Amino acid sequence: MSRQASRASDPRKVNGELFTLTYGALVAQLLRDFEDDEEVNKQLEKMGYNIGVRLIEDFLARSNSGRCNDFRETADVISKMAFKMYLGITPVVSNWSAAGDEFSLLIENNPLIDFVELPDGHNALNYSNLLCGVLKGALEMVQMEVDVKFVQDQLKGDSVTELRLKFVKRLEDAVPVGED
Amino acid sequence: MSRQASRASDPRKVNGELFTLTYGALVAQLLRDFEDDEEVNKQLEKMGYNIGVRLIEDFLARSNSGRCNDFRETADVISKMAFKMYLGITPVVSNWSAAGDEFSLLIENNPLIDFVELPDGHNALNYSNLLCGVLKGALEMVQMEVDVKFVQDQLKGDSVTELRLKFVKRLEDAVPVGED
Repeated sequence: MSRQASRASDPRKVNGELFTLTYGALVAQLLRDFEDDEEVNKQLEKMGYNIGVRLIEDFLARSNSGRCNDFRETADVISKMAFKMYLGITPVVSNWSAAGDEFSLLIENNPLIDFVELPDGHNALNYSNLLCGVLKGALEMVQMEVDVKFVQDQLKGDSVTELRLKFVKRLEDAVPVGED
Repeated sequence: MSRQASRASDPRKVNGELFTLTYGALVAQLLRDFEDDEEVNKQLEKMGYNIGVRLIEDFLARSNSGRCNDFRETADVISKMAFKMYLGITPVVSNWSAAGDEFSLLIENNPLIDFVELPDGHNALNYSNLLCGVLKGALEMVQMEVDVKFVQDQLKGDSVTELRLKFVKRLEDAVPVGED
């Protein structure tokens, strides 16, 4: 379709504040729908997953990123290319496990939480959990099963937001599940 | 808060495709919640309204846009400054009413509908209705009551997406209603 023709050449940018407020409307809607924080976390991850399996195609087309040789290279591509490209930030890659199969992304300026305060009684809500799903979905499409979770969150008073990624296994085929 | 400090100086950009997919997740969730298209349209407008009343502050801070002298000037500011700044597009201002109180914004490349197809049986859905609410909410905060609606939509096979804005009245005080 013609309205999609410019994809490869035109990395259209939108204003971060509009994105932040729209994301906030999504989270607020899920809180109204499900009330339970854990369920909202699950829904956000699921939505993120569906976004990730689509976004990876766009990422590969734009980034000219080749196959990563190891998980350390993957970490760098996620931080310096993917986060930079999609959210305009570059998280610090840190806290590697001895085995090299786990690392953290330290985020100091998560655009999703600008101007956000968690409502009372939602201490179990991982507000930005969509990001976990996006990473999980995108990595699955390049044959990596990875666990992703928040271990620190500035919204909960932590000094930094920390996303933890753990390599689980290499997948033989990219079969997206849970997409609807 | 420190994570908000950079607002005026840093118009952070995010990738349009991430925004588009996140917006799609929001609409899909509303369709699951309400099923009825008209109700989804209403919810999207309401969410947009709440976004608009917040976004206008950001817009005024960034744009250095002064008070508009008439509705024609408002139309230009919306098209050339607001749409450009937040969605990266510049709709064509067109189809003025004789009285000068109504105009259309013609949008050829609405980023909200990239890669979107309306599911069957949702002909009454105004997929991008959030935009109507954003405009309504933002304009209300600068003392203008304006009706905003879609009259054409590329998602429904029209050759262009057309948003129609009708000036209703000048407000004495900015009292945002319906915000929660």
